[in-house]
Amino acid sequence: MSRVIRTAAAQLGPIGRNETRQSSVARMLELMREAHASGAQLVVFPELALTTFFPRWYFEQQQQIDYFFETEMPGPETRPLFETAARLGIGFYLGFAERIIEQGVSHYYNTSILVNRQGKIIGKYRKIHLPGHQENEPWRPFQHLEKRYFERGNLGFPVFDALDGKLGMCLCNDRRWPETYRVMGLQGVEMILLGYNTPLHYPLAPAHDHLQNFHNHLVMQAGAYQNGTWVVGVAKAGIEEGCELIGQSCIIAPTGEIMVQCDTLEDELIIEDCDLDRCREIRENIFNFSLHREPQDYQLICQPKLSTEA
Amino acid sequence: MSRVIRTAAAQLGPIGRNETRQSSVARMLELMREAHASGAQLVVFPELALTTFFPRWYFEQQQQIDYFFETEMPGPETRPLFETAARLGIGFYLGFAERIIEQGVSHYYNTSILVNRQGKIIGKYRKIHLPGHQENEPWRPFQHLEKRYFERGNLGFPVFDALDGKLGMCLCNDRRWPETYRVMGLQGVEMILLGYNTPLHYPLAPAHDHLQNFHNHLVMQAGAYQNGTWVVGVAKAGIEEGCELIGQSCIIAPTGEIMVQCDTLEDELIIEDCDLDRCREIRENIFNFSLHREPQDYQLICQPKLSTEA
Repeated sequence: MSRVIRTAAAQLGPIGRNETRQSSVARMLELMREAHASGAQLVVFPELALTTFFPRWYFEQQQQIDYFFETEMPGPETRPLFETAARLGIGFYLGFAERIIEQGVSHYYNTSILVNRQGKIIGKYRKIHLPGHQENEPWRPFQHLEKRYFERGNLGFPVFDALDGKLGMCLCNDRRWPETYRVMGLQGVEMILLGYNTPLHYPLAPAHDHLQNFHNHLVMQAGAYQNGTWVVGVAKAGIEEGCELIGQSCIIAPTGEIMVQCDTLEDELIIEDCDLDRCREIRENIFNFSLHREPQDYQLICQPKLSTEA
Repeated sequence: MSRVIRTAAAQLGPIGRNETRQSSVARMLELMREAHASGAQLVVFPELALTTFFPRWYFEQQQQIDYFFETEMPGPETRPLFETAARLGIGFYLGFAERIIEQGVSHYYNTSILVNRQGKIIGKYRKIHLPGHQENEPWRPFQHLEKRYFERGNLGFPVFDALDGKLGMCLCNDRRWPETYRVMGLQGVEMILLGYNTPLHYPLAPAHDHLQNFHNHLVMQAGAYQNGTWVVGVAKAGIEEGCELIGQSCIIAPTGEIMVQCDTLEDELIIEDCDLDRCREIRENIFNFSLHREPQDYQLICQPKLSTEA
């Protein structure tokens, strides 16, 4: 049985603050239809794909923040994604801001879902490595308040049986951390889906701005190779509300090679036939975990942070 | 006080099976003098730098194996390295096969040492990620019997105070594993020294042979960036006893950028001024461990291998 997933990475251009969810969904539906027309079985959208990247602003009123969060998925505006996916028989990954209310208390997460070819949610991930800062820092040209607006994800890094393979998810800054890939690699992941919103300008070390694209690919290629997994990285790109976001959405083979890459900063679709059996080329050889890992020497990695640390 | 270490990576070309230790040491002394003449304070030699890469052969007699191991360091043939280093005031890293005898039992390690500018050994590392296989596999064009000839290193991944910085070491296949860098990163490492002997041809997946140079740099650049550390990777290169070894020795900044790289497969020296304070550009920002690591979600990485695994 073939284990090739024809996979589409659906990069989005910028989404303005006043653009509606209906508008974002309409753009994604167009990309989904294009993906289906090319024979894709899976389409991957970015992180926080329904709205502008709102953590760039400090909001004083909770109502302003809540505006950007979904309280149901699908909800009225997102239902067409699910219906079209089911009708076309195409799965998808979607990043969005998730608000849930438990015993009267609201919880906020930076979330992604995996939807199968029948339009059903079969996997959920909540972002663990939240970047940025917690308090308003007016010296910055823009804020990055993910640590303020989101709680740390509470679902770990799960791996899901889907499309005859083992699929995992993460979001944006997660991709910089080798632990993200390894925890899924140890569960046999064969394809990691991830969306990102990555500003070109990093206010803490502006001398590194010219390295953003290099770092973006470096960490995803290393994560793919070191775990023998496909990686599908999808940007929201372009100049969004005056903030430049990098593009370079790509699909990376288990060898770490970039197989296909976006060449615009706009809505753009790229497609690759991802043969999940190619993971074995790496996982049964150079990164044969059972033969070559040495966890007795990794213990420091799993120790709690020192109390002197934040 | 300046924390710039002018560092030399001293790539070696091939060492034939019949070449003597005296000959290898003479070549290293020439590179050491060249490094000193350029103002270097530290020179980094490859893994198993004193002899040919002997794990490529299956030996039936222990005496044939023992021939390649050092029982004292310095010994008669290696003493000139230490004496010259002390005289010139230059530190060095050296990889060699180490045999120690404890209570009448011999132990064998793939080892590296760090020698200070006074010619004293101040750090030792024994290779943990031993690649290859344990039994003779005659179908291979050459063997890779590290798992047969060496015991797994028993010193962990220590970090040493040296040259006004924190220096760590690893060897060859260790560099492919992100855990190697992370365990040292968590101890504040600022420069990782590593030597390698990497065949261009990988008999288990020959279709990947053309990726060997790419993978070599990918893992070292990712390890440097993800831990904000300098990495000095030094090859034994060229055609050694019919086996092609990759070169591409290089010095990598904490940003993951390759600052300087060898362009031959022969004895070759490259030099870089490594400012240890540049580690902070990464470690206090994007990879600020105390702010951004999430070890509670990494636990799988440190669990013992399953009993069903080898």
